[in-house]
Amino acid sequence: MNVTVHGRTRHFRTVTFDRARNVVSLIEQRLLPHEFKIVTAANFRETASAIRDMVVRGAGAIGATAAYGLAQGALAFRGGGLKTFSAHLRLVHQTLKAARPTAVDPVNAMNQVLDVMRRGRTVQERQFLGLAAAEEFAREDVRHCERIGACGAPLIRNGMNILTHCNAGWLAFVDVGTATAPLYAAQAEGKKFHVFCDETRPRSQGATLTAWELAQQNVSHEIIADNAAGHLMQRGLVDLVIVGSDRTLGRTGEVANKIGTYTKAVLAARHKIPFYVAIPLSTIDWNLRSGMDIPIEERDESEVCGAWGVIGNAKSHRRAYLRVANPSSRARNPGFDVTPPGLITGVITPAGIFKPGALWRHRHKLGFSTALSSP
Amino acid sequence: MNVTVHGRTRHFRTVTFDRARNVVSLIEQRLLPHEFKIVTAANFRETASAIRDMVVRGAGAIGATAAYGLAQGALAFRGGGLKTFSAHLRLVHQTLKAARPTAVDPVNAMNQVLDVMRRGRTVQERQFLGLAAAEEFAREDVRHCERIGACGAPLIRNGMNILTHCNAGWLAFVDVGTATAPLYAAQAEGKKFHVFCDETRPRSQGATLTAWELAQQNVSHEIIADNAAGHLMQRGLVDLVIVGSDRTLGRTGEVANKIGTYTKAVLAARHKIPFYVAIPLSTIDWNLRSGMDIPIEERDESEVCGAWGVIGNAKSHRRAYLRVANPSSRARNPGFDVTPPGLITGVITPAGIFKPGALWRHRHKLGFSTALSSP
Repeated sequence: MNVTVHGRTRHFRTVTFDRARNVVSLIEQRLLPHEFKIVTAANFRETASAIRDMVVRGAGAIGATAAYGLAQGALAFRGGGLKTFSAHLRLVHQTLKAARPTAVDPVNAMNQVLDVMRRGRTVQERQFLGLAAAEEFAREDVRHCERIGACGAPLIRNGMNILTHCNAGWLAFVDVGTATAPLYAAQAEGKKFHVFCDETRPRSQGATLTAWELAQQNVSHEIIADNAAGHLMQRGLVDLVIVGSDRTLGRTGEVANKIGTYTKAVLAARHKIPFYVAIPLSTIDWNLRSGMDIPIEERDESEVCGAWGVIGNAKSHRRAYLRVANPSSRARNPGFDVTPPGLITGVITPAGIFKPGALWRHRHKLGFSTALSSP
Repeated sequence: MNVTVHGRTRHFRTVTFDRARNVVSLIEQRLLPHEFKIVTAANFRETASAIRDMVVRGAGAIGATAAYGLAQGALAFRGGGLKTFSAHLRLVHQTLKAARPTAVDPVNAMNQVLDVMRRGRTVQERQFLGLAAAEEFAREDVRHCERIGACGAPLIRNGMNILTHCNAGWLAFVDVGTATAPLYAAQAEGKKFHVFCDETRPRSQGATLTAWELAQQNVSHEIIADNAAGHLMQRGLVDLVIVGSDRTLGRTGEVANKIGTYTKAVLAARHKIPFYVAIPLSTIDWNLRSGMDIPIEERDESEVCGAWGVIGNAKSHRRAYLRVANPSSRARNPGFDVTPPGLITGVITPAGIFKPGALWRHRHKLGFSTALSSP
């Protein structure tokens, strides 16, 4: 999407590949929203470090980064036959996989690249196919987000107030994003609307990343404390809620997403406000039979006891961690919650909008396969 | 309540009066929870400054401070007759009233003191009566909180998990507090329970003041992000919710309280968790006929865009404001919300627990008077 740097507006993607230099270029997301910077990973080890150190985050974005990293590692191979190449490739694969061991997206992305590469009969053919497959993975990520935008845009009418939670924006994908895709598509159609960004404590992705995205795209928006959404709904100031999802159960329609999503769904239901979840197909879990089986990560309590940000003014500032809470108190910090299908008006996918309970019935349209379905 | 300073545990009140030195002693609440310090206001102007600069905050606490400040100003009067004394007293009253012009508690408290003083026939008698009345105001504040504790304690059973929002603790009153009173009373009865303190963004009074109070009292507790309460309720980890109130409508049972209270009430209702509001009688508004008429203060957006806390470690730190949000984004910051009576299980008052809809019927028991009821 567009980013304005020093008064000049250009189109950027979260991750791109420079074939001539064999480098992966990434938006350094740890500096956002206070600084915009592109960094390059000169080899597959640096690409793995960028994934591990959260330079890049978000399902689609780390998937594409791992796919590019695998192609990058393959292209860097010099001399030797297919056997040495395969050994090298295993090392690259392992290095990238180990960078974020609990994430499924890098693994799925690299498997797609590896499947295509195997069709090559020479090292060179495999190198070429690897790059083509990585590029295709990134292109498909963008296409899927664009389709989510096209499916979701009709939900947005002129003058609407829309609530979002956390960041399922283009920074979390290669471009466009999921929960933000209908907003950008509606804006492109000339619709005027206003977005309330939940701050999204404890990591504040709404106040930082989503607000930054919307500001760059000139979408009218305001940040609110997570506590304020209920009041705004009660006063009739919210017409639509759109959130993303980390994992959606294809069998039950339950949605795991950033902590606080469930609360917003309960509030929306009370006020009869449509509540939509925008998801890429890759986050549908066709195996699990109950949302209670989704492991809820307990994150570090320092996130709840303080905040990361900057100290100083617009011209001169430095990143810092601030302790807010009582020093002798502990915190509990569940990272995600599970929203039941009864609270969800619809799931916006690249293949259309579905009632959450109807995902299983439409599974073949939604990319269900035995390969995906194996544990 | 108890505070442990340098390993020594002593009983403190939020505000006390030292007659020998004619000074008001206050806990410097702006330093909490990172530092505990008692400051003294040497004359009525310093007492007014302490109210204005938020050294002391909370309904009962600023009421008692203003009452003491008035007595302090009266006692400092030297020479002259009743007429000069009255002129002096008007100055003291105006100075203290102007310190927090929108608050009703200092005005009500000072009116109580003035009513008693008028019974005196000499300057000296009035000075004496003023101090006695201020002391009585503070004692009554404590008595009311203790009665709330006695009424609310039976709601707490061994092993319960209790959710609180914001701080309606002893720091907001002279001692004991309102929402915290049942906790302290149950603890005194030997009951074991656990408290989840909502962080309470944007000003974080739960993470700072309530957590500090509970830690000082050795009450088992954990801080949670405001977003986490719904998840904990869904998993059966919350058995009871107790909050305070800034204004309760005696005619309708609607409760205005810190932003986010309404959200917790909606969540509690969904999960059939009892939701109680603990209130001193002074916060009942017998005039307003609709919660929609309660003005909701829009506070400064810097509260939402960042946080106040400390930078450094336990030994060496300094207070600082941290900017978290995207610098070019604006925020909306409603300070309060209104919870309808249908979501409230009961209102815990010094005179007993009432259904919110039954307050009007019991108004004479609850301190309703034409004086209170005039606009």
